[in-house]
Amino acid sequence: MASPVELLSLTNPVFKSYVFWVGVLVIKIVLMSLLTAIQRFKTKTFANPEDLMSPKLKVKFDDPNVERVRRAHRNDLENILPFFAIGLLYVLTNPSAWLAINLFRAVGIARIVHTIVYAVVVVPQPSRALAFFVALGATVYMALQVIAAAAF
Amino acid sequence: MASPVELLSLTNPVFKSYVFWVGVLVIKIVLMSLLTAIQRFKTKTFANPEDLMSPKLKVKFDDPNVERVRRAHRNDLENILPFFAIGLLYVLTNPSAWLAINLFRAVGIARIVHTIVYAVVVVPQPSRALAFFVALGATVYMALQVIAAAAF
Amino acid sequence: MASPVELLSLTNPVFKSYVFWVGVLVIKIVLMSLLTAIQRFKTKTFANPEDLMSPKLKVKFDDPNVERVRRAHRNDLENILPFFAIGLLYVLTNPSAWLAINLFRAVGIARIVHTIVYAVVVVPQPSRALAFFVALGATVYMALQVIAAAAF
Repeated sequence: MASPVELLSLTNPVFKSYVFWVGVLVIKIVLMSLLTAIQRFKTKTFANPEDLMSPKLKVKFDDPNVERVRRAHRNDLENILPFFAIGLLYVLTNPSAWLAINLFRAVGIARIVHTIVYAVVVVPQPSRALAFFVALGATVYMALQVIAAAAF
Repeated sequence: MASPVELLSLTNPVFKSYVFWVGVLVIKIVLMSLLTAIQRFKTKTFANPEDLMSPKLKVKFDDPNVERVRRAHRNDLENILPFFAIGLLYVLTNPSAWLAINLFRAVGIARIVHTIVYAVVVVPQPSRALAFFVALGATVYMALQVIAAAAF
Repeated sequence: MASPVELLSLTNPVFKSYVFWVGVLVIKIVLMSLLTAIQRFKTKTFANPEDLMSPKLKVKFDDPNVERVRRAHRNDLENILPFFAIGLLYVLTNPSAWLAINLFRAVGIARIVHTIVYAVVVVPQPSRALAFFVALGATVYMALQVIAAAAF
């Protein structure tokens, strides 16, 4: 078995791919905050009294555009953050490079598509469901491989 | 001190245990999405217009069964995801195998119990509080050990 | 290039700093649960029927003090958890020690300040926005460095 030294080097194409997609998805997640802020200013929907730009405004929690971005953001936390943890451990199980790189790509692309069809341009279902399940399926597969590697 | 090479190998029983429980908990977290979906379909509670299965339905945000699963899910993000980060660093501090393995087990089992008594079969308190504090206590202990290892 | 063995050792001051701040921030995140609980008991705002301390109480979801702490907590998940993932990979890119240590410090201190001005003593804007953007900027910088290391 390859040692962690080689597995966690950027000379390992599997680790390199993991690192690339984590970088991209971290930026994607934090951009959701800016997307939320844009919607808050556009719709003048602020959740805290100290955020109100004018004394005429009141705190508001139910703007559908703000809430949509917040749901997409929360969905990212629910799905991308577990991928970060399991992806690293999956790299350490020394998987087939072709499969692993395509799983990381699938998660990365599916989660970007998920955000676009959910919170940027609303596209009818099942586009969001499909994007969701591609990333979920890849994550579950990696988790099962990781459990198998640890259990036997 | 053992080197990261040995610490992050599956031949290290502490790392093996960490890997096993992260795998199990990742699957547990993503299953919460399916549990939410089941409750959404059962109670016809959909948060987005494009998710409505029939033109007669309207978006709805206050179904108690859906919200209960969502609270359990969010509680997972608040507690399991920090454990993923601190658990890995705790492995790298080369802790006593017996203690570390039992801490990981405690977190894993406590968080599964937490979900069951919160979102599957509602069990009166203090069952949920106990499950919550077992995992929290183990996580804080690991964090303090990690801080001590880094500070001295 | 230094090998992962050296990079993930506590003899590497960059890794040591990362480990320290992850430990501190994990404790900070889980303390938000206790802060929420304190507000729930103070304002008698409980989200689950099984949590009600007296048969006269009803579930309640809209207490502004509870919701404020919950928003601060969620903001932590959105920003600190991606930092945990990207920080570790940034360590593995073998960055300049001075820069990396100060980036970790910036994230750690900014996120503690964010919680204080948001959920402990409410301080007028732009204090919260500033704390938010310092941590966000450092995280995005690390993510870009990590992407560059993986892409070339």
